[in-house]
Order: sequence, then C-alpha cells, then structure tokens
Amino acid sequence: MKRVMLVVAYDGTQYCGWQLQPNGVTIEEKLNEALTDLLGEEIRVSGASRTDSGVHAYCNLAVFDTLARMPGEKISYALNQRLPEDIRIRRSLEVPENFHPRFEKTVKTYEYRIWNDEFPLPSRRLYTHFCYYKLDVEKMRQAGAYLVGEHDFKSFCSVAAQVETTVRTVRDLEVFYDESSPGGHELVIRVSGEGFLYNMVRIIAGTLIEVGRGEIPPESVKEMLDGCDRQLSGPTAPAKGLTLVKYEFEESGEVY
Amino acid sequence: MKRVMLVVAYDGTQYCGWQLQPNGVTIEEKLNEALTDLLGEEIRVSGASRTDSGVHAYCNLAVFDTLARMPGEKISYALNQRLPEDIRIRRSLEVPENFHPRFEKTVKTYEYRIWNDEFPLPSRRLYTHFCYYKLDVEKMRQAGAYLVGEHDFKSFCSVAAQVETTVRTVRDLEVFYDESSPGGHELVIRVSGEGFLYNMVRIIAGTLIEVGRGEIPPESVKEMLDGCDRQLSGPTAPAKGLTLVKYEFEESGEVY
Repeated sequence: MKRVMLVVAYDGTQYCGWQLQPNGVTIEEKLNEALTDLLGEEIRVSGASRTDSGVHAYCNLAVFDTLARMPGEKISYALNQRLPEDIRIRRSLEVPENFHPRFEKTVKTYEYRIWNDEFPLPSRRLYTHFCYYKLDVEKMRQAGAYLVGEHDFKSFCSVAAQVETTVRTVRDLEVFYDESSPGGHELVIRVSGEGFLYNMVRIIAGTLIEVGRGEIPPESVKEMLDGCDRQLSGPTAPAKGLTLVKYEFEESGEVY
Repeated sequence: MKRVMLVVAYDGTQYCGWQLQPNGVTIEEKLNEALTDLLGEEIRVSGASRTDSGVHAYCNLAVFDTLARMPGEKISYALNQRLPEDIRIRRSLEVPENFHPRFEKTVKTYEYRIWNDEFPLPSRRLYTHFCYYKLDVEKMRQAGAYLVGEHDFKSFCSVAAQVETTVRTVRDLEVFYDESSPGGHELVIRVSGEGFLYNMVRIIAGTLIEVGRGEIPPESVKEMLDGCDRQLSGPTAPAKGLTLVKYEFEESGEVY
C-alpha cells in the first residue's frame, strides 16, 4: 500500500465543485473514475480544498491509497489520458502513508478576478466577475488591510458553515490591476492564509467591491469584523471569479 | 442612411470564424441576426478582418448601413442584449458614409499565445497552444527579427490564398513570457503590421516554435523569405492560440 498525492488543475465552469454530489458531476468524481479505471482497483481520493461549483484551481491537492505498482510520479501522465481536458494532473508524487495536506501547516493563495470595464470581455467571461462600476482601488486596499492578521471572520462566512471556530489568519491581501490583462482591465484581489471559512474569499471580494464602488467606507470593514454577523458584510461574489492559485507547505517549503 | 462601426470582441471557440458559411455558425451571422432583429431592417455587416475558425478577437471591426434613428453610440448596449455571451460589442459609433476600416491605413496587432509547460492548464486551454518542449526564446527572437520590415511573405501564406501581392510589412515582432500568467508559463508572440496574408501569423508562430525547439536555426527564416515557397516554412500553429488584440488607425490615431 502506498499513498500518492496529486496536484490538480481544473476549469470549474462545467462542474458542481470538488466534492461528490448525488446530482451533478464533480472533480472528485472524475478523479475517482479515472483512477479506478487506470489502477484497476476502487480508488477514493481525499481532497485538500473543497472548492465550490464554478471555482477554478491551478493547484488543488488530493491524496489516495493504492496497491498498484505504478510509480507515483508516472501516474500523472497516465491519468491525464483518462481525464476530460478541463481537469489536468500537474504532478503526482508518493508521500508518507499518514500524510494529508489538510493536516499540514499550509498557506493557500486565492485570486479573485474582476473584469472592470464597460462591457465584459468574451474570452475572460468564465474566469472573471464582470463589474462595470468604476472602482476605487486605493479604498479597496485600505479596506483589505483591516482583514490581514488573526481575526474572527464570522461576518465573512456563509451561515451554513459548521465549524468549531471562525477565527482565521489572513497572511496577506493585495488589490491590483493585472497590467498584462487586455487593456489592463482585470482587477485582482489576492488573498493568502492558513485556512479559509466557507465562502470567505468570495464574501471578502463582494465586500471590497462595495467599498470600491463607494457604497461603504473602508473603515466599515473593521465594524464588520467586530460585529461577528454575516448580515454586516457585503454580498458573496460569483464563483467564476475565484481561483485557487498556490499551496505552500510551511515546514518543507514545498510550493504547488 | 448612416454608417455605424462596431468594435467586436469574441471568444472564437464555438464559431466557424468570422465570415458567413453555408454550414456552420459564424460571428458575422450572429451580428447580422442581432442587428436585423434590433433595427427592424435587413442588416449586413462588412468586417475588417476575416478571422479563422477558433481565432479570438478583442477588437475586430465591422461597419453597416442603417436607416434606423437609434444613435450609433447607443447600438452597442442594445445589441449586447441580443448577442450570445461569447460575442460583445465594446463600442459602436457613427462614421462617414464611405468609411471602411479595410480601406484605411491601419496597423493590426495579433498575439499568438503558447502554454509552455509540462501539462496544459485547463483554464487556458481554449486560448493557448500547448507546447511541452522547452523553447529557446532568444533564438525565437533572432528568427523573428528577420521578419520585421517589408518582405515577400509568400512562404508564410497558405497556398489557397488568392491575392495580388504577397509583399507585406511587419512593423514589430516580440517574443516574451507573460510574467503575470500562472507560473509565468505563457509565451507570447506579438506581431503588428499593416496587413497580413491568409494564416500568416499562425505560420510565423509555427515556424518560431520550430526554431525555439531547436529543429531549425534562426537564420533559416531568412532563407524561407528568400525562397518564396510555403514548403520552406514551419507548420500552421493551431487557431485557438491566436487573438486579434489591437487596431490602430494611422491618420486619426484612433486605437481600438
């Protein structure tokens, strides 16, 4: 028996998210099917981040156990032959039998991308949230600064979430225009942290957009944190603007 | 009667190119349908660049004549309501009755994008050509430099093309990694010129990829130009990597 870790990139457009669903195709399902077919035994992957329906990833992580003799690092090549073109294994590697990325100290980075122009750009429509309002980036940065550090993010978490604590640490939050995007119209909110609550990055994005539009002042983000009430923060921004872009393991220094 | 010009962006993935086809949906067809529906009269647009099946654009141009009273600059808004989300009118404006972008002095810029990594990235698969070979960018630049200026590009033109002359002027050709692309893996060949032959940019891209792979030396591009024979140059790179990104009018200085 050995444990293999997969680094998985996907275009989430056509999927009902990562996690297995009774009604709807998911990334996890496609991986289980392709691995079971490839290795000739029933495989069940366990993912590191359960991304929502429509969310994209460059580097989600998953582990599975197998009796197969195929070397771990060869699995990526064979598996990509069996996966649809909107899911790709960027790397596969053998890890210790008790290793799981969810229980390691990691820093994850998400990018929320906003197409900020008068009209949406067709070739970016599946990967950005279209926002035609003029956005004040400086105010968005001021608002974002309140979120950096350890805080109770209860106001930035969907009510459905069942967790022991809503305290999380945001390591870094940047707001910038991607200068190499067409016309420089793509605004990026890049957030990294040790862990995120359900919908947390999308609620942060929805709130910062409200600040950028001038609907609420940057300082109100501090009151949102203090109030610990989802009603106080902004709307949950649409899933398609969100991408999981980086996974860093603190102890080993490995980056995916 | 007035003439209106449209600045049209599209994701070419689902279309059989710009030009009307007996079998297959095209951008031109979608524009004619939406305009005819909007303005209540039979409209036929005339495009500036007949992009191929699968090619994308941020700024193709088209003109049409109409008796409708709707101000030219309002047409973009109303038309976007009637178009599929992979076609968007970025701007509409009234132009002189005898104006056609095809007969003006213009400089067009195309980008050919290559995803240069071990595996394709799902969210870029429709907008880049996947190339897993290591590419020598310096050699690609050396090869590209031979193409800048006025030359007979007969070797860089598909044989089917029927044109009076195959002499064209390439104003500029750059080869660079887009540093803001995921992992910096996206290689861009940016070419601008006053006019392009059929498949010219895709043949240039296919040739520079061969040079980057080390299959042919940079200097051989000079022999290709001199030989005036399509057999001498590289393959036609796939359509999906190509995007029409900029249109500049030399006299007015207008840029779309």
